[in-house]
Amino acid sequence: MSEIAHLGPVEMFTPRGDESLAFFVDIMGMEIEAQKGPATYLRGWGDYQRWSLKLIASDTSGMGVLGIRAWSPAALERRVAAIEAAGLGEGWAGGDLGRGPSYRFRDPDGHRFELYYECERYDPPDHLRPALKNVPGRYTGRGCAIKRLDHVNILAADVRANREFCVDTLGYRLYERIELNDGSEAGAWMSASIAAHELIYTRDARGLTGRLHHLAFWVDTREECLRAADIWLDAGIEIEAAPSKHAIAQGFFLYGIEPGGNRVEVTTGGRFVYAPDEPCVVWTEEERKKGQAWGVKTVESFHTYGTPPA
Amino acid sequence: MSEIAHLGPVEMFTPRGDESLAFFVDIMGMEIEAQKGPATYLRGWGDYQRWSLKLIASDTSGMGVLGIRAWSPAALERRVAAIEAAGLGEGWAGGDLGRGPSYRFRDPDGHRFELYYECERYDPPDHLRPALKNVPGRYTGRGCAIKRLDHVNILAADVRANREFCVDTLGYRLYERIELNDGSEAGAWMSASIAAHELIYTRDARGLTGRLHHLAFWVDTREECLRAADIWLDAGIEIEAAPSKHAIAQGFFLYGIEPGGNRVEVTTGGRFVYAPDEPCVVWTEEERKKGQAWGVKTVESFHTYGTPPA
Amino acid sequence: MSEIAHLGPVEMFTPRGDESLAFFVDIMGMEIEAQKGPATYLRGWGDYQRWSLKLIASDTSGMGVLGIRAWSPAALERRVAAIEAAGLGEGWAGGDLGRGPSYRFRDPDGHRFELYYECERYDPPDHLRPALKNVPGRYTGRGCAIKRLDHVNILAADVRANREFCVDTLGYRLYERIELNDGSEAGAWMSASIAAHELIYTRDARGLTGRLHHLAFWVDTREECLRAADIWLDAGIEIEAAPSKHAIAQGFFLYGIEPGGNRVEVTTGGRFVYAPDEPCVVWTEEERKKGQAWGVKTVESFHTYGTPPA
Amino acid sequence: MSEIAHLGPVEMFTPRGDESLAFFVDIMGMEIEAQKGPATYLRGWGDYQRWSLKLIASDTSGMGVLGIRAWSPAALERRVAAIEAAGLGEGWAGGDLGRGPSYRFRDPDGHRFELYYECERYDPPDHLRPALKNVPGRYTGRGCAIKRLDHVNILAADVRANREFCVDTLGYRLYERIELNDGSEAGAWMSASIAAHELIYTRDARGLTGRLHHLAFWVDTREECLRAADIWLDAGIEIEAAPSKHAIAQGFFLYGIEPGGNRVEVTTGGRFVYAPDEPCVVWTEEERKKGQAWGVKTVESFHTYGTPPA
Repeated sequence: MSEIAHLGPVEMFTPRGDESLAFFVDIMGMEIEAQKGPATYLRGWGDYQRWSLKLIASDTSGMGVLGIRAWSPAALERRVAAIEAAGLGEGWAGGDLGRGPSYRFRDPDGHRFELYYECERYDPPDHLRPALKNVPGRYTGRGCAIKRLDHVNILAADVRANREFCVDTLGYRLYERIELNDGSEAGAWMSASIAAHELIYTRDARGLTGRLHHLAFWVDTREECLRAADIWLDAGIEIEAAPSKHAIAQGFFLYGIEPGGNRVEVTTGGRFVYAPDEPCVVWTEEERKKGQAWGVKTVESFHTYGTPPA
Repeated sequence: MSEIAHLGPVEMFTPRGDESLAFFVDIMGMEIEAQKGPATYLRGWGDYQRWSLKLIASDTSGMGVLGIRAWSPAALERRVAAIEAAGLGEGWAGGDLGRGPSYRFRDPDGHRFELYYECERYDPPDHLRPALKNVPGRYTGRGCAIKRLDHVNILAADVRANREFCVDTLGYRLYERIELNDGSEAGAWMSASIAAHELIYTRDARGLTGRLHHLAFWVDTREECLRAADIWLDAGIEIEAAPSKHAIAQGFFLYGIEPGGNRVEVTTGGRFVYAPDEPCVVWTEEERKKGQAWGVKTVESFHTYGTPPA
Repeated sequence: MSEIAHLGPVEMFTPRGDESLAFFVDIMGMEIEAQKGPATYLRGWGDYQRWSLKLIASDTSGMGVLGIRAWSPAALERRVAAIEAAGLGEGWAGGDLGRGPSYRFRDPDGHRFELYYECERYDPPDHLRPALKNVPGRYTGRGCAIKRLDHVNILAADVRANREFCVDTLGYRLYERIELNDGSEAGAWMSASIAAHELIYTRDARGLTGRLHHLAFWVDTREECLRAADIWLDAGIEIEAAPSKHAIAQGFFLYGIEPGGNRVEVTTGGRFVYAPDEPCVVWTEEERKKGQAWGVKTVESFHTYGTPPA
Repeated sequence: MSEIAHLGPVEMFTPRGDESLAFFVDIMGMEIEAQKGPATYLRGWGDYQRWSLKLIASDTSGMGVLGIRAWSPAALERRVAAIEAAGLGEGWAGGDLGRGPSYRFRDPDGHRFELYYECERYDPPDHLRPALKNVPGRYTGRGCAIKRLDHVNILAADVRANREFCVDTLGYRLYERIELNDGSEAGAWMSASIAAHELIYTRDARGLTGRLHHLAFWVDTREECLRAADIWLDAGIEIEAAPSKHAIAQGFFLYGIEPGGNRVEVTTGGRFVYAPDEPCVVWTEEERKKGQAWGVKTVESFHTYGTPPA
C-alpha cells in the first residue's frame, strides 16, 4: 500500500481558451499561478502544490497528461519498474512547472500519465496569504471557490483492463465497480487514500480510447454545491446534472460543461474507507437502473458524452 | 396592521470611504448602482429596490437616514398624520435616488427617518440579469454574496420610549424585549412582517443618542454565515463575534467591524411569527446571563460599542 | 391586507391509518397531541397551535377540512360576510380541538375550509418543554424533525376561478402563476405573508374536483431536506422527487408518498416578498419546459397524481 | 507508512451507566449492538465494525482500552515487535466482541491500548439494513445521528514523549503540534490517514496520567453539528463549547459533557493532508492566544478538565 500519494495535477485542452479560462477563474474561482504560451496554470485555494490544472488552448478538448505523485522516491522507483515491466512505460521527462523528474507512461486505453515525486509547495504572495498557517491559500470566496482538484473520471474501451493495471501496477485500491449482466465491467472507482474515489474509469460508449469523462473539483460542503448551481445558472453555464447524491461512492455532485466542451464536476462528500480489507462493492445492472441515491435518473448524455467529442 | 411594508434603504457614514466601499463591494459582494458625490448607492442581488445601502464618505461613522416604506399611499398619509400628532415630524423631502416623496421625522432618540411609498423596482443591466424572473438580480457569488439589507439595530438612551413610538405611531409589532431587574428596558425587537425582527433598539451604554449598533445583511443559509467568517478572516476584517445563534429571535449571526468603524452583521434564520396575537417574549436579566442560544457569552464590546464612537 | 393570518391546521385522510401515523411520528418526527376515535392530532416542534395536522383513518385518502386563521375577530366577521356574499358559505361550526367557532365554506372547486380566529396556544408538557422561551416545543431531532405545517397545494379543475376567490374574497396575495399558451391558468401561488407561498392551486389533470396535490412541512435548512431524503430512502418511503430547487417561488423540496397514498413535501427556502406592490410573476408554458431551477425535469406523476386517486 | 489502519473501538467508563447509555442512544443516536454485564457495545450507522464504543458502568469515568487496527497481519507483527522493543508491551489478549487476538500495551503516559487486525464486519439485522450497499447501517436520523467514532484526544503529563512513541513505534503521522515559549509541547495531532487527526495528545494541566480529554464522533456536515447543539440544548446536556471552527486541524466542533462526566465532541470537517511530505505545522503560544479559527476564546475548562476528574 501507499506507493502512490494522490492524483494530479492534470492537463485539459480547450478549443475556446479565453472562455474556458474565464470559467475557471471567474466562475470556479481558481487563481492563475503562471502562464506559458497556450497554457495557464491554475490552482484552488486548498491545493498544496503550485497548480492542479493546466488549461491548454488548443484545437480540441479532452485531457492531456494526468499526474500521479508517488509516496516517496523509493516508491517512485518501484512503480516505474512495475510500469516498465507491464510494457507501458515511455521514459523520463523533465517534469513541468514546480515538478521534478516525471516518468511518462500510458494506461492500456492510451491516456497519458506522468508519475513523479519531487514538487514545490505553494508559497502564496501577500495578497493570497491565508490567516491560518495550515491552509495553502487565501479563501477569497470568488465564484464557486473550489478548494482543489479532487478526482478524474476517464473513459476506456475496456474498463477492466485499465482498472487491473491501476490496481496491480500503480497500487490503487479498488472500492466500487459496476458489473453488467454480460459480465463486462462498466465502471471502476479507485483511490489511493480513505477518500472514496480519486481515479475512475467508466466505459466509453463510443468504443473510443483516450477520452475524458470529467474532472471533479472539491468544495467542503453540500451547500457550496447548491450555491455553485445558482452561480452556473445565472452565468449561463450548461448544467448537465443538477446537484444530487451518487449511489456509488456517495459523493454529492453538480455536473456541467465548461465553454471548451469538457465536463466538469463540483463535488463534496463521499464515504471514507477506513477498513484495510474493505471488500469491493459490486453494483449490478439492475441496481444501477434505480438511478442515483435518491432515485434521480442519470441523464443520457452522462453515459455517452466524452471529450474530445466523437 | 400593515401600515408599513419594510425597513430600508439606509444611509451609513464612513470616515474611510474607499476602504468601506471596497468592503461592501469585494467582501460583502454588493453591486454599485450609482454614485453621487461622496455617496455610493449599493445593492444586494436580492434587493427589489435599486439600492438598500447608501455609503457616504464623511468625517465620521454612524447611520444617516433610515427609510421605511409604507404599505400604501393611504397608509403613508395615515402614518404621517400620526407622526405629526406625536410632534416628531420634520416635513416632506424630495426623496432620494429612485424614491418618491419622503416624509422626514426623528424617533424620540433623534435618529433620522424617512417614510415613503413610491419607489422604483430594480431593472438589471444585461450583465446582472438573473436566469429566473422571480429574482431581482444575478447571483454572482462574489465574496459573502449578501442578498439584501435585513434589519437595523439602533441604540437609544431610552429604549422603551422609542419602542412605544415605533409600535404606537409607526405600526411596528413588538416580538421580544429585555426587561432588567430595575424595570428598565434594555432592548426591543420589532417587525413589520412574520420575520422575527427588522428594527431593533438596544440601550446605549454611554447614554448617548442617535447612534447605530449595527446593520444586518441577509444570506439564505447558515453555511453562508460560516463561509462569510472564513472570507472575513482571510481578508483581515475584524470579527467581533464568530458565527453562532442568538437566543433572542433565534437568528444566526456573524458580527464584525467594517473599515469605517461601523458594526456589520451577516445574518440568516430567525423565527417566523405567524400568530396575529403572538405574545411578546420578555427576557429577564438572569436569562440574558446565560449568553446566546448555545451558551456563547456575548463579547463586552457588543454591549458598549456604537457609531459614531463615544 | 392582513385579513387572514395563516393557513392551517389541516385534515388528511388515510386508508392505512397505522402506517400513516407511524410515518408522521417516526419518520417526519411529529408529536401526538391528542387522539379521538379515528383521528390523531399531530404537531411539529415549531407549531404555535396545539396541532397542525389531523390524520384521520378512513377508507380513502385526500384532504379534509383546511383551516385558515383570520387576523382578528373583526377580520373574521368581514371575511365571513364576503364568503356569504360569494355564495360559498356553509355556516358556523363548533371548531375543533383547541379551536373556537369556525365558519365553514367551500372554494369553487369544492374543497372544505374553516375560517376561525380563536385558538389555544400550545403549552408543552415537561418532557417536550424547550430551553428557549421563544420556541413552542422541544427539538428532539427525531426523524426529519419537521418544524411546522408550511403550505398546502390543492388541485382544481379551474385554477383561475379558485385563485380569484382566494384573492378577492379571502384576501390572499397572488405572487406567481402559470399561464399556458391557450390562456388558461395551470397554477397559482398565494400567500398571506412575505413567505413565497402558503396556498397553491394547480390544475387537476383528471378534471376532478376537491383533490389534494400535497401537504408541505417546513424545515429550517436545505441540509435538513437532504437529510430527510436519506431517512426516507432507508425507511422505504417512496421518493417521488429528490431534493432540488423550484423555479417558481424558489423553494427547496423533497417529495414523496406517505403510506396512505398522499403526497407529502419537506420544504425550506423560498423567496420573501417584501414589496407591497410586488407584481405577480407569470410563467409561460415555454418557461416551464425548462424544468426546475437547475434544470431538473419534473416527474410525470407530479402533473397527474392527486388524492384521492382518480 | 500504513502500518496502522485506524483508531478504535474505544472503551469509556461512566459512574452513571443508565444516563450515559440514554445519552449515547437517544441523544447521540447510536445503536446497541450487544450488552455484557456492565458493558454496552454501541455503534454509529457508519461504523464498519460491529461497535466503536464500549460503555462500561463503573465507579469512575475516563477511558479504558483504546483499540488500534493494524493495516495487515504482517503490520501487526511488526508493530508488536516495535512496542516490545520499546518496553511498553503487556502481551496478547483474547480480543473483545467481534475482534481477534489483540496485543496489549500502554503509551508512556499509561493509557491502555490494544493493537489488532482481525475483526468482524457489521452485518445489520433487517430493521437496520440500509438501502445502499456501500453503507454499513441504516440512517434512522435519531438524535444527533452520529456516523462513527472519529478521533480520541487523551491527556498526558509529557506530550512529547507520547507523541514520539506514537510516531516512531506505532507509525502515526504528525500533522500539527503546539510548542510553548519554554520549548515544551502542549499538544500533538496525529493521523494514520489523510484525515487531519485521529489521535491527539494534549497536556494534562493537573500533571496527572492516563486521563481522557474527549472522544469525538463524526457527522458529515456542519449543519449536523449546529443541529446537535439544538438537540443538546433542549435535552439539558451541558454544552461546554458551542459550535465553531478550530484553527488547529480546521475541524468544526461541538463539545459537551455526557452524564457520566466525560467530554464528548460532535465533529466534522477538518483538512485533508494529501502530501506525503507534509511539514508539521507548529503553533506558537502567541498564535494560540488568538483563540479558535474565527477568534472564539477557548473556555478555561477545556484546558483543565479531564476524566477521571482530578
